[in-house]
Amino acid sequence: MTKIVVVGGDAAGATAASVAKRRQPEWDVVVLERGEITSYAACGLPYWLAGQIPQRESLIARTPERHRANGLDVRTGATAVGIDVAAGTVRVRSGDHEYDEGYDHLVLATGANPIVPPIPGADAPNVGVVHTVPGSQRILDEIEAGARRAVVVGGGFIGIEMAEAFTDRGIAVTVLDLAPAPMTVLDPDMSAEVATMMAANGIDCAFGQPAREIELDSRGRAVAVRTDADRYPCDLVVLAVGMRPASDLAAGAGLPLGRAGGILVDRRQRVRGQANIWAAGDCSLTYHRLLREDVPVPLGTHANKQGRVAGTAITGGSLTFPGVIGTAITKVGTCHIGRTGLTEAEAAAAGFATSTGRATTNVIAHYMPDHGTMTTKVVAESGTGRLLGGQIVGDQPGAAKRIDTLATAIWNCMTAEELVGMDLSYAPPFSPVWDPVQTAARLVR
Amino acid sequence: MTKIVVVGGDAAGATAASVAKRRQPEWDVVVLERGEITSYAACGLPYWLAGQIPQRESLIARTPERHRANGLDVRTGATAVGIDVAAGTVRVRSGDHEYDEGYDHLVLATGANPIVPPIPGADAPNVGVVHTVPGSQRILDEIEAGARRAVVVGGGFIGIEMAEAFTDRGIAVTVLDLAPAPMTVLDPDMSAEVATMMAANGIDCAFGQPAREIELDSRGRAVAVRTDADRYPCDLVVLAVGMRPASDLAAGAGLPLGRAGGILVDRRQRVRGQANIWAAGDCSLTYHRLLREDVPVPLGTHANKQGRVAGTAITGGSLTFPGVIGTAITKVGTCHIGRTGLTEAEAAAAGFATSTGRATTNVIAHYMPDHGTMTTKVVAESGTGRLLGGQIVGDQPGAAKRIDTLATAIWNCMTAEELVGMDLSYAPPFSPVWDPVQTAARLVR
Repeated sequence: MTKIVVVGGDAAGATAASVAKRRQPEWDVVVLERGEITSYAACGLPYWLAGQIPQRESLIARTPERHRANGLDVRTGATAVGIDVAAGTVRVRSGDHEYDEGYDHLVLATGANPIVPPIPGADAPNVGVVHTVPGSQRILDEIEAGARRAVVVGGGFIGIEMAEAFTDRGIAVTVLDLAPAPMTVLDPDMSAEVATMMAANGIDCAFGQPAREIELDSRGRAVAVRTDADRYPCDLVVLAVGMRPASDLAAGAGLPLGRAGGILVDRRQRVRGQANIWAAGDCSLTYHRLLREDVPVPLGTHANKQGRVAGTAITGGSLTFPGVIGTAITKVGTCHIGRTGLTEAEAAAAGFATSTGRATTNVIAHYMPDHGTMTTKVVAESGTGRLLGGQIVGDQPGAAKRIDTLATAIWNCMTAEELVGMDLSYAPPFSPVWDPVQTAARLVR
Repeated sequence: MTKIVVVGGDAAGATAASVAKRRQPEWDVVVLERGEITSYAACGLPYWLAGQIPQRESLIARTPERHRANGLDVRTGATAVGIDVAAGTVRVRSGDHEYDEGYDHLVLATGANPIVPPIPGADAPNVGVVHTVPGSQRILDEIEAGARRAVVVGGGFIGIEMAEAFTDRGIAVTVLDLAPAPMTVLDPDMSAEVATMMAANGIDCAFGQPAREIELDSRGRAVAVRTDADRYPCDLVVLAVGMRPASDLAAGAGLPLGRAGGILVDRRQRVRGQANIWAAGDCSLTYHRLLREDVPVPLGTHANKQGRVAGTAITGGSLTFPGVIGTAITKVGTCHIGRTGLTEAEAAAAGFATSTGRATTNVIAHYMPDHGTMTTKVVAESGTGRLLGGQIVGDQPGAAKRIDTLATAIWNCMTAEELVGMDLSYAPPFSPVWDPVQTAARLVR
């Protein structure tokens, strides 16, 4: 009987295990999860902390019990501490004892770890990261204990989502970042719009100043964050400065690692150079179709898709993961943000000469109520007009989700002018007569 | 000096004239408009009648005065009554006199006319069509005079938009159609969902019964619509059974006409076989990329794009109109509808064997508040998996506008599996972890 051992029971691991079991019901599929929770929605944690999701159980797509009912041998509290590639075994620690688990196929889905900046005070009890359910529970406990002022270190996706969460809770919040603006995945002209909208949403923004120290009181609790420029009093700190692939286990086994320590895989999620070891989700690198490089992209939707590919490929299916182009979306208060492909700076670094188009338009027909405003920017290759990137900042959800049109166009190597002529949906409650992405594309020079 | 004469001052005509004038400021550009209003948003009329747009002036993108300020010779109340192709002149009627206007290039942008079903009573004063500002004003006058019950004949786009308008006004409304369900541009399984949601929005639906007669009272006013099955009392009737290209002028000049009498044009909007006569917008036919046929598609966004192409091509530019794939979007109350490409029936008629995928999902992450529900259907070519069509019915605007992702994928000849693997934007406030269009594509069998 063939046996698959999956390390990690979240998005990528649980999906790979479930798909494999569905395709090969006779196979043994073991899932080793070091925590107690499987298949939780990490991306939903800020919304739970915001109070938008009353029950934390709602975040859990499938409990260990449900996975077991589907035939998976899910073992919680089971940490993989080593791999013997030659023997085909994983060393597992479970409570006080250790054992070796043999495998025919091994799937590494160990996720990513939040980066904790090496500054004094980062380990205080009221300093946290938004990553796991228990870790987020600690932040929620501080909120419910009456926190009044929070500092978020980091102005990226999780940072601004937490700024929204605190604002929703009526907690004053300052977002600190060493970058000159939030959301450096956007070009500066677009991130400046985000900064303006964050301020309009009552969020205190302190950019261009790295956090140097978290000041503690006599009880060891954080009371302020210090930068070179200023001191930001607070009773709660969230660190959101990025993620790093959790690949210690792979490194210990001598598996090939690339940028940021992510595991290198092929298009079927097989670890490079290995016959029967696979990796999926945040611990592995993802091929970027425009950069032509393997890059870390910690995102639940990719983890799910890569898990599906791994589970299918291991069981003899022909699926491949086609790579990504850097599509992402988020919001902070009334500011809705989408991006895909390359920014001007990324395109230049990748060797492209670029032309851009940028348009500020209504989200829907100007004569409709609540027509909203959005800025759409398109980055294209000079000369050919081939679309390379898109960025949207607007005041409605429907503004940001239009990024998918640009993503699909970029995916298919369309030119800006081809996009202008394309048959997109139009009616006054949904769009101006020219869709904003077409208006921006029309302005590419 | 080169002279362009444009017949029709709305979306296609005014755009063609404006683009041409901008590109060739020295040229004379004459616009003959038989009414008094230019560049109005015909698609916005139902929302004005609904009371969502307080000022009818908001619907007018550019007045004749503004066009004149841009250098266009706009003549309102000027009806083109004949073309002498050999002489290169248009016969113009203006008030009591007629004159011949010579042209170097002639652009026909005469639009479409609403079809009035040949039933008794259709010409009563409280029976109207939603097409022009003055015609819609008559309906508004009836509403403001206290209409309590309306019947809409026709369950297509304008029909259901008017059902929403009457509901918004607190006017009881029945939608009648000879078709068995509303929105026959959808497959029956999807239009059935529309019918259910219309009923849930308080709209009385009477399908499968053609209107036979509009009953008049002694003053000649409509008091009921009769079908074979029933009699629907009302004090206002809107006819919304479709549009037909307004091509009498072109027909009189012997220009080539195709389906439904639409003018046949090439990809630059030049009338087939003519050197210097062009047509754009609803009076012309539009190439359908999947059907490989020229079909009538009266829609403001195409009219604008075709006008831009004509204005550019006439003045020596190299733009072409790439055709359409049948993308459309609308709403009726809380029911939001998008469609693109071919339905199952259309695909079969075009010679495709099809497979379909259909998924009912949340619009955004299931654990978020107001997560909504949508049904997404994908039609693909059997064997190849090439996407041919998409249909969406959901309870949020963001559900329907996702049709653009499917439209862009179909435009680029993607397969269902390619769509499943594509990098679309994900975050809990915007999407489930698998975008609904990918979930539907995954189910294609």
